[in-house]
Order: sequence, then structure tokens, then C-alpha cells
Amino acid sequence: MASNFFGNIFRITTFGESHGPSIGVVIDGCPAGIALCLQDIQEPVDRRRPGTNNYTSTRKESDTVELLSGVFEGKTTGAPIALLIRNQDADTSAYESIKDLYRPGHANFTYLKKYGIFDYRGGGRASGRETVARVAAGAVAKKLLSHFGITCTAYIAEIGGIAIEDLSHVQTLINAIKEQGDSLGGIVACVAHLPVGLGDPVYSKLEAQLAFAMLSIPASKGFEIGSGFAASRMKGSEHNDTFGLDLQPKTNHAGGTLGGISSGAPLFFRVAFKPTSSIQIPQTTITTSGEEAIFQLPPNSRHDPCVAIRAVPVVEAMTALVLADALLMSRCAALDDGSRAFCPSARNTADAPLPPNKRL
Amino acid sequence: MASNFFGNIFRITTFGESHGPSIGVVIDGCPAGIALCLQDIQEPVDRRRPGTNNYTSTRKESDTVELLSGVFEGKTTGAPIALLIRNQDADTSAYESIKDLYRPGHANFTYLKKYGIFDYRGGGRASGRETVARVAAGAVAKKLLSHFGITCTAYIAEIGGIAIEDLSHVQTLINAIKEQGDSLGGIVACVAHLPVGLGDPVYSKLEAQLAFAMLSIPASKGFEIGSGFAASRMKGSEHNDTFGLDLQPKTNHAGGTLGGISSGAPLFFRVAFKPTSSIQIPQTTITTSGEEAIFQLPPNSRHDPCVAIRAVPVVEAMTALVLADALLMSRCAALDDGSRAFCPSARNTADAPLPPNKRL
Amino acid sequence: MASNFFGNIFRITTFGESHGPSIGVVIDGCPAGIALCLQDIQEPVDRRRPGTNNYTSTRKESDTVELLSGVFEGKTTGAPIALLIRNQDADTSAYESIKDLYRPGHANFTYLKKYGIFDYRGGGRASGRETVARVAAGAVAKKLLSHFGITCTAYIAEIGGIAIEDLSHVQTLINAIKEQGDSLGGIVACVAHLPVGLGDPVYSKLEAQLAFAMLSIPASKGFEIGSGFAASRMKGSEHNDTFGLDLQPKTNHAGGTLGGISSGAPLFFRVAFKPTSSIQIPQTTITTSGEEAIFQLPPNSRHDPCVAIRAVPVVEAMTALVLADALLMSRCAALDDGSRAFCPSARNTADAPLPPNKRL
Amino acid sequence: MASNFFGNIFRITTFGESHGPSIGVVIDGCPAGIALCLQDIQEPVDRRRPGTNNYTSTRKESDTVELLSGVFEGKTTGAPIALLIRNQDADTSAYESIKDLYRPGHANFTYLKKYGIFDYRGGGRASGRETVARVAAGAVAKKLLSHFGITCTAYIAEIGGIAIEDLSHVQTLINAIKEQGDSLGGIVACVAHLPVGLGDPVYSKLEAQLAFAMLSIPASKGFEIGSGFAASRMKGSEHNDTFGLDLQPKTNHAGGTLGGISSGAPLFFRVAFKPTSSIQIPQTTITTSGEEAIFQLPPNSRHDPCVAIRAVPVVEAMTALVLADALLMSRCAALDDGSRAFCPSARNTADAPLPPNKRL
Repeated sequence: MASNFFGNIFRITTFGESHGPSIGVVIDGCPAGIALCLQDIQEPVDRRRPGTNNYTSTRKESDTVELLSGVFEGKTTGAPIALLIRNQDADTSAYESIKDLYRPGHANFTYLKKYGIFDYRGGGRASGRETVARVAAGAVAKKLLSHFGITCTAYIAEIGGIAIEDLSHVQTLINAIKEQGDSLGGIVACVAHLPVGLGDPVYSKLEAQLAFAMLSIPASKGFEIGSGFAASRMKGSEHNDTFGLDLQPKTNHAGGTLGGISSGAPLFFRVAFKPTSSIQIPQTTITTSGEEAIFQLPPNSRHDPCVAIRAVPVVEAMTALVLADALLMSRCAALDDGSRAFCPSARNTADAPLPPNKRL
Repeated sequence: MASNFFGNIFRITTFGESHGPSIGVVIDGCPAGIALCLQDIQEPVDRRRPGTNNYTSTRKESDTVELLSGVFEGKTTGAPIALLIRNQDADTSAYESIKDLYRPGHANFTYLKKYGIFDYRGGGRASGRETVARVAAGAVAKKLLSHFGITCTAYIAEIGGIAIEDLSHVQTLINAIKEQGDSLGGIVACVAHLPVGLGDPVYSKLEAQLAFAMLSIPASKGFEIGSGFAASRMKGSEHNDTFGLDLQPKTNHAGGTLGGISSGAPLFFRVAFKPTSSIQIPQTTITTSGEEAIFQLPPNSRHDPCVAIRAVPVVEAMTALVLADALLMSRCAALDDGSRAFCPSARNTADAPLPPNKRL
Repeated sequence: MASNFFGNIFRITTFGESHGPSIGVVIDGCPAGIALCLQDIQEPVDRRRPGTNNYTSTRKESDTVELLSGVFEGKTTGAPIALLIRNQDADTSAYESIKDLYRPGHANFTYLKKYGIFDYRGGGRASGRETVARVAAGAVAKKLLSHFGITCTAYIAEIGGIAIEDLSHVQTLINAIKEQGDSLGGIVACVAHLPVGLGDPVYSKLEAQLAFAMLSIPASKGFEIGSGFAASRMKGSEHNDTFGLDLQPKTNHAGGTLGGISSGAPLFFRVAFKPTSSIQIPQTTITTSGEEAIFQLPPNSRHDPCVAIRAVPVVEAMTALVLADALLMSRCAALDDGSRAFCPSARNTADAPLPPNKRL
Repeated sequence: MASNFFGNIFRITTFGESHGPSIGVVIDGCPAGIALCLQDIQEPVDRRRPGTNNYTSTRKESDTVELLSGVFEGKTTGAPIALLIRNQDADTSAYESIKDLYRPGHANFTYLKKYGIFDYRGGGRASGRETVARVAAGAVAKKLLSHFGITCTAYIAEIGGIAIEDLSHVQTLINAIKEQGDSLGGIVACVAHLPVGLGDPVYSKLEAQLAFAMLSIPASKGFEIGSGFAASRMKGSEHNDTFGLDLQPKTNHAGGTLGGISSGAPLFFRVAFKPTSSIQIPQTTITTSGEEAIFQLPPNSRHDPCVAIRAVPVVEAMTALVLADALLMSRCAALDDGSRAFCPSARNTADAPLPPNKRL
């Protein structure tokens, strides 16, 4: 697979399958000297955990994080930080009945073609369960970022095309879709406050790194920064953000970068998620031996009516991982380590497309 | 900067500034044995060249490619292929007058903060001129892909919010905007035909690599694959592509991948471009010493009314680079080198969101 | 630290400290379809284990390997393979008394200066204990190599300057040095049989990758391939290996590569190890607060009289990791995946500096 | 080939063949703000140039460096620095007669097997001519290092087994070998002064990076740091360097690192070079079609009696490249960017195996 790592200097490598013994992550390149305790990691992992509200799946996992290395006397040592989460609710018997079917919207077809083998138990490595490792690693990245006043917050922006501000409408929609055994798509937005100077020009632009990170999240279908796709319908005279005397843009159509480098304005982007592929409604498909068949989820299988809701902490974690890596990389830009570029933390500009920052 | 390379095995490194002596690229990792002549590279570079139609800038560059290494007796040797393009129309006197102004929508502010120095001549490294190196390298990638029946084609889908099918409307719009000294955004789409099995799961999903590539193109603001942002407004029962007896999906909301791996269905994605930042209309800004000023482009400076049009061959080139790298990586997936996974070239499915494949 | 990984495509990332809860490794990029069971890994780990003969340290560790991911129904799936080994004999009380002393020949001085923190318990991350993860990963690499008829064997060549063939002399020497509380250096040799075509020219020459791997092993001080340092005293007419009609060199001064690429002749190299730094004899040193002091190992601390003996399986494992990575990389050299280059497994040439292949 | 780059953050990519149009290098990741002019690069390139003394080959090359990018108003901008050197003396007619012979000690056999093609003109990419690009890039690395008081110097230590101090003996030896049409091996040593804290533990130990760099130089056969192979014959009580009150080791058997990280003591290592493979004496070989033949160099072909002499500036350049990369990497080790670790430049310790620092 050769792609189970993410990042350059602050780099994570994850492992584990949905219904294997465990999920885990090794964080390499975290600087020494950061105060870090298990609770810093367990708390966001708990927030992501399935079964914590009415709108996510009912898989029962305690998701207890074990800290295997890299911390001594309450501080990071510079050594790799390994985190392990044992799978508990890993009964795979339900998957026996569907192991010879290509699942619509799932990866078992392509894994089988590419690897000649597929761990069909709950999606194996392709399962959303892998994202618990991203959230755990993101928690460590956030601890690093906090030393530099950098924050990032993801939140649900739309569900099924309805803006989250219209909360009662959204809740009615989700309840109806659960009733039907169907699922909804959604949009997750994220805003970050960070200094000038993160991101590298040309190929590793900050927005390119973020786009890579976001499209690596299961079920994501699109990414846009600042004005995004709306920019394609604008004129240059409308779109250009002009500078104020405080060196901040008066508007934020750019979304927080110029030429791939953070400008000090709030970073703002959105990620589109498709509706959850696993639905209770029967679907036609074919078997691995090429015959027509009906795919029907096992009766008690656990799935989310809207995967975008589950994705919120994952978007936030991946953002933190991108920013932590960019922060360390930025130390190598100039003779004096680049810290010169770090101006006081950016303010929220008035006309910027700023988020309501609500959570479901 | 440390980010002037792209790709893992099929890797390019580019260099050169808009108004420096030259632009160039070194392609490392191209397999030996591919027939390659200068014309294979010159032809697409000529297509990208400014001043070739009424709708792009009037910079005068012959863009003559020089092949410096890596080809012997008409074939690639496995050694790095270096390509050099001399800048000719590099008169920088026009830029003297604006060198102390932060340009709205431009990178000189962030470069100056990050590096403490900025090559203000025509945008320096941040200029769109850098993309000529991408197009030259993409031509080599395409030669490799052609051996495996892989093709990719980019085209303009929308300009200023108008679908390109409405061609007379679009032309009227562009002419009007040129008249006003303003600019338009647009959307570039791309479709590729490729076998099953390209792309790596988890972090280096094929769509993640494409998103990274596309957001690295100057002026791009968004990326979506298959149904993209529209997926966020769909239900699972609508969105899931069901398999036909030919192992192809009956619809193509996925856009050609499942779990980050190509499925054999056509790869389809769209990229949003903002309107060109450089416009003839005066804009307020501040000077590098912090005073208010008016930014006015030098009278004869050369710019495009719609950067999306110029971006078409760049999108195509970056797609070819992603696919060439993924193709080579896929040889390492399984004991038998993964070629087992390559089924006969995919057909265009009937209900897929297929492109008209027009060019301006 | 950002350097806890090794390899490009077949890549390992290790974690864990000598006296932390565990040591582990994640193997990313192992192809799918390789039969692999726990015993394949446990067996070489047991061979490396301390306390297995009279000449290595007496630390009591069961070194039981746990397989956390990447194998399904007895075969690798292409997903990352995580291996975990719990530390058991991790009593750190003995280290309390020496935690404020810079240990001669040890890393605590440099770690403290670089990271501002040092896990002094038994050497922390710098301990030779980390190498158990390399041996475990090397076992997986060997399984891959075995599919291609590639083998590698390391063995002790010299101890304290005495060739291992003079076995009774060597044994007397080790017993005497143990009695004195002192330690001995040694040389480990390694021979591998592999096809033509592994290794990349210019920077990632096969011997460069091996040298990197070998100098990363704790206590190693030198590497030489083929004739090695002796080559510096030879004439070209003596040193050049001439080709026989079977395409094999008649001598093997090169040591199995030409231009950085394996030639089909046996790969042969040697690694120098310094005497174990931890000795029972008191040594002068200074404290972390800058005062003179005497460093004396805690009475029951566990150490080896000759670290070279312990290094044998580590050299072998690192060789396997280099070759596995080179094997996968070689698939991308030419249009036809490079397998063309693989001639039948090389024979041992008569005049080659071949090893007696003995083990203590 | 996919291996024509070197370094992580300070990264070079080289291109060009011995008898192609040019040799060149792109340096990516050089920090902005370093004063750099062409002469800084041309001077060391001139020192390396063939034909500059009686003991190196007579190939006539002006080796004029052209600076293509990355410098503006006399300073590096952070953008990639591309350097180009045109080949002039590239008459390839002499090579026609030997193109169907496997050359003893040369790479054409392995290149042909691996790539199915070989640029036989003067060794193509495998030629020592490629090292001019390393020397040019090393000059830029040295400019960066000089800002931090870091220096490195390589020098000939032995030729044909004779220490260079015995200069008249060495000169007699070289003259005799030239007369015979034969060649000699040699040893190049290098010493560097650098602060504490460069190098990463575990895999990217400073000595491992150096070993990798040195074994990538054509004709090198071995690497040793500090006591090197002699360490294998020493006892721990002799070998351990004890700390003085100035935090410097009283001896320097370690060679300047502890646990893979620079200790502030002088870095000292040696590299073994085989005798030049190209000799005037006829040698038996076989043709590419498998018949016995005699290999005889073309009458006026240009070669060195002792490649080690030519390697001196290459060893120095590769050392500078390793140290520049390690310097930038070290900024990411701790929260406060690691500069804390940089103590005043190390002194030469009395008992250290220090070099006479002579040049031929």
C-alpha cells in the first residue's frame, strides 16, 4: 500500500483494520518538550466515538487509547509517539453472508483487483474506523500548534443541502432518512487562525496540502478554499481582496493564503461528503463470480445516516496535521529560521466568509 | 522552498522565475525504453503558449524547449530528463514602478514575509509562467501512459458561470470583460481512461493526489471528483453506483475511484479557477512601508482575461503526472507486480457525467 | 526525531524505548499475497534475544511478538503490518543513580543537548533494544525476498582482531574480557545472493543504501563492500573483475555491484563494530551540572562483552530490508517492469572473497 | 532511475551524461537570504576540473557554470537554484569501437541489464563527470554552513597504501603507475567542525547519512568514522572517549558523533577508493553477444591514474550537502527550534586522530 503515512517532518503512519485486533498510529517528528498526557488524546477520540449521539452509528467501542512510547515525565522526548486502540466490538460473523458481493459505493471491488485479497470484515483497512488513528494523532498536532497560538475548528455547514443554521429542518431530515434506511450527504467547513508564512509555494501550497488531506478522508468528494467554486462565477474586480493598513485583507475570498502561503487572514475551507454508502435499502449488485445479486446489509450492522457528521473531528485532525507539518517546515525557509515572519495572531476580518462555528 | 518537486517515483523538479533567464524541469524516475523526441514535448508547450488565441495574454515567447539529458538514440534511458526553456520577453522595467506595492490577489506579500525577499519581476517564482515546465513534463508522462492505453483530456467546462456549450454567450462575455479591463473565473474539467488499480488507499488515494496536484496550480480554488459538491445534497440510494455484469458501474457518481483506487470507470473531476488577479482596473492597496496607495498595472503588461483558459493544458499535464506516478507505484502492490489488476481499458458508461470534450 | 523510518517503498517505522512499555514496528508497502504467520517473525526475534548464549547479556525478555494488522487468512493484504513486543524486564531503579552523569560512549549527552530531555532509563530510544524491531521487520522482508530466490546471511568474521575461524582463541579472549569487566570490538560480514538489477545508480546505489543501513546500527563504525579498504592498496590491473562467458565476474573485488546496481555476483560486505560502551570498569566523566565524577555501571546491569555478536541478526535484517526495497523499486526501471533483468540466481564465483558462513 | 536526488530539505537533483550536451543540478530547499554569486560556485568547480595538475586526466573542459535561477540581487530567494555546465570535449567517436564490450569494473553491463539500454559514450550517466554537479551544489551548501561557523575539509590520506605525508614516495609511485598504464587506489579523509546537535537518532544518524553520501561517489568501496575498522580490534576501556570539564571528549575515537548526533568534537571520517577502472593495459572480457574479446581503451581516452585524487572535492561537497541538510532538519527537533543546542564551535581535541590537512 505504501501510503499509510501522512506528512513530511511531522509524519504519522497508521495501521489496523476495522475488525482486526487494533487500530494505531506512530507519530514521527514531533518536537521534544511538549507537555502531553493521555487525556489530551483520549478526549478528542471520545468525541469522535460512535454511539455518542442520536445521529451516528451504534457500534460499541470504548476506544481506550494506550500511549506506547515517546513521552517521558509528562513531556514529548522527540522520539516517536505510538498510540494503540484495541478493537472490541469486532464480531465479524455478520459479514460472512456478504463476503462474495461487490458492495455498491465500497472499496472491496478495487482492493480485490489491486491486491488479489480483501479483508471483508467491516471494510478492513478501507473502513472509516481507520480515522480514529487520525483523530488521536491530530490531538498531538494540536498540542504543538497551541504553543504558537494556532487553532483550527471544523463544523457541519450543511446536511442534505440544508444549512446547519436551520437546525430543526436538519433534524427532521435526518430522522426521516433514518426511518427510510437511507443516508444523507453534507458539507464540513473548517476555519483556522495562524500566522503569516505557513505553506510552501509551487507544489506544496498550503491549500494543496489541505486538499490532499481532505480528499484522503473516506467519503469526501470535494474541497474548496475561500470563495472556492463560487470564484469561477466572479470577476477579478470583485474577487481580489485588498489590503488594509493592518496588513490584513478587507475581504477573504482567498481563504487565508496567497501564492500557497498563509497570509495571516483566517484560513477557511469546505469539504463535501457523499451520503453514507452503507444503507438499509436493498441494492442490486454482482457477485465476485460475476452473477447478479441483491446486496442487503446484515440486520444489525452499524452505520451512520450522515457520514459528514462523523467526519467533523477528522477534518479538524487532518487540518492540525497539515498545519503542524507546515509550521516545522517553515523553520527552514530563511537563514533566521522564519520566525521573523510570524506576526501576531490574525484577527477575524469583518467581511470574511466566516463560519458560525456551531456543532450538532 | 523545498517544495519544487512533485511525485514519488515519476518525480519532477522545476526551477526558474517569470523574468529570470529560464524555466526548466528535471524528470526523475521515467522508465527506460520510451520513444521520445523533442517534438513530443514542443507540441503541447506550443499549445499552452501565450498569444496563441484572442483570449489569452500577449506575452511574446517562442518557448523553445531544449532537451538536455536522458534520451539516447531516440529513447529514454532511465536517466533524468532535463528540459530547458529560455525566457525571451523578460523586460522587467515595467515592474520597477510597482515593486513597493502589495499586489491584491498576488503572492508578493506572503513571499516577502516568509523569505524576507521577493523577486518582483513579473511574479518571480509565483508566476503562472512556471506552469510551462509542468506542461513540458506532462508531455513525457503522457508518452509513458500511452504505452498502457491511458489517456487524459482537460477542457473548459464553464467561464464566468456559463457552460461552455453556450459558446456564443461565452465569447460575448469574454470580449466584454476585456473591454472593461476586468477578468473572469472558470471551471476546467478533466476526464481520463485508465485501468483498475491505480492509486493507494488511505492517504495517497488517487483523488487525494489529484486534489493536491490541482490546488497546486496557480489561481485554483477548488476540486471535486465525480458528483463532487452535489453529492452533499444527495441520498445514498441515489448516489451509490451499482455494478453491471461487465464489472462497470451503471452510473459514475464516484468519478472513477472506489476507496481511492481507480475502478476502471472514467475518471472525472473539475477544478475551479478564480478570475485572473491582474486586472487593468485600479485597486487600492498599501505600500511595503505601510502607506495607502493605488495599484495600477503597467500599461503594456500582459495578462489573461480568464486564467482558466490558460489552465487547461496545465490541468491535463498535472493529471498525466499523477497517473504516471500511480502507474509505477501500482507495480509494487502485489507479488506479481499488480499487472494482474489491469483489465482491458474502461469503456465510457452511458449514464456517466461525461464531458463534451470541447476546447475553446 | 523525524528519522524513525527506513526504506522508500518497503518502509518500516519503529517506536519504543528500552525501558518504556514496548518496542514496535509498522511495515508499510509490503506487497499483498505473501504467506506470513507469527512464527516467521518470532523465530528470528528469538535468535536475537538476549541471554540465549554465554556471550550475550543476561536481560530477561520473552520478546513475544504480537501481530496487530496487515495479515488476513494467513496472507499479507497489502495493508501495513504492525508488530508489537512488550518490554518485561524494565526495572529502571538501577538507572536512578546514574541519571545525572554523561556516560562515556553513550548518547545521553547529545540527546540532552538536542532535545533538552533524555529518557535515561537504559538508553531510552538510543538503546540496542530498538534493534528487536528491525529484526522483526527483517523477517517479513525475508519472506518477500524468498519468493524471488534472494537470500542474505550475516556472520561474525572477527572478534577483537581474531578471525572467527580460530574459534578456541576467540572463546578464550571473550572469557578473559568478561572476567575483566571490559568489552571487545568485532567485524560482522554478510553475503547475499540476488539477481542482476537491484539498486539505483548515482545516489541510491545499492552499496550506498547498505552503508546507510549498516551505519544506522548502534555501535557500528565502518562499512566496506567487496575489496573495501584493501582496494585502496591495489592496482587497477589487479582489482578489475573480468567477465567470464557465463556473464559472471571471475573475481569479486567489486562485491556484487557495478555502478551501484547488483551484477548477479554474490553481494559481500563487512561492518566494523566498536567494543560495547557499557563496561564494568569505572570511568571518569562529568555530571550534567559540570562536575567531575566517576561513572560506574549499576551492579546488576546487563550488557554484552562484544556487541558485534548481538549485531549479527541485525545486520542480516537491515540487509533484507534494503534488498526488499530495492527489489520493489526495480520494478519501475523500464517499461516492462524490469523483470527482464532478472537472470537465474547467481552462483558463487570461485575466486570471490567468500565467507565461511559460520555462526558463534 | 528515480534516485538522482540527494537530501531531504536541502535537496539536490542532478542530470546529464558524460558526453551529452550538459551536466546540471537543481538545489531545492536552500534558505533565502544567503549572499551568493557565480564565483562562489565556479571556484570549487575549477578546483575539481580535469587537467589542472599532472596527476589527473587530460579531458579539456572549461566547466563554465551558468546560474539559471534562484538568486536575485545577489541573494538566494528561497526558490530553487539551477546550475548548468555545458559539456565541450564530448567527442564520442572513440567510444564507437568499444560499445559492444562489457568493460571490466564498469557499469555498462548492469545498466544494460537493468534498463535495456546504455548510453555508452564515456560512461553516460555512470561517469565520474556527473560529480561536477555535486561539487557545484556543495559550494552552495558551504555558503549556508559558513553562516553557522561550520566548515569541512577533505584531503588525500593515502595513495596506493602510502600515507600522503611521505610525499616524494607517493609521487614516485604515481609516475610509475602512469608509465605502466595502470592505476592506484587511495583513501580520502575529511574533517568537519560543527556544533552539537546535527543528525537524527536511529536511522538517519549523521554517520549513516555520511556513509550513504560517500558510497554514492563513483569508485568508493568503504567508509569509516573515527576509529573505524580499528575499533573492531580495541577494548571498551580503550575506546570510550571520556568527557572533559569543557564538555569535549578527551579523545575522539567516536569521530564526532554520539548516538548518531554530532557531539561538538571534530567530525572525522575516511573513504576508501578503488584504483581507477579505466587502464591502458588490455584486459579480457566478453562482448554483448557473449563472445570472448580483448578490451583496450581507445588511444587518446582520458583517465586518471588515481581516482581518489579527483574525489577529494567530491567528498568535501557531499559532506557539505549532508551537513546543510542536517542543519536545517535540526531546527525541528524541539519547540525552540534546536538552536539552544548550538554551543560555540568545537575545538580540536588534543588526542583526536586529527588530520594533517594537506592537499596534493
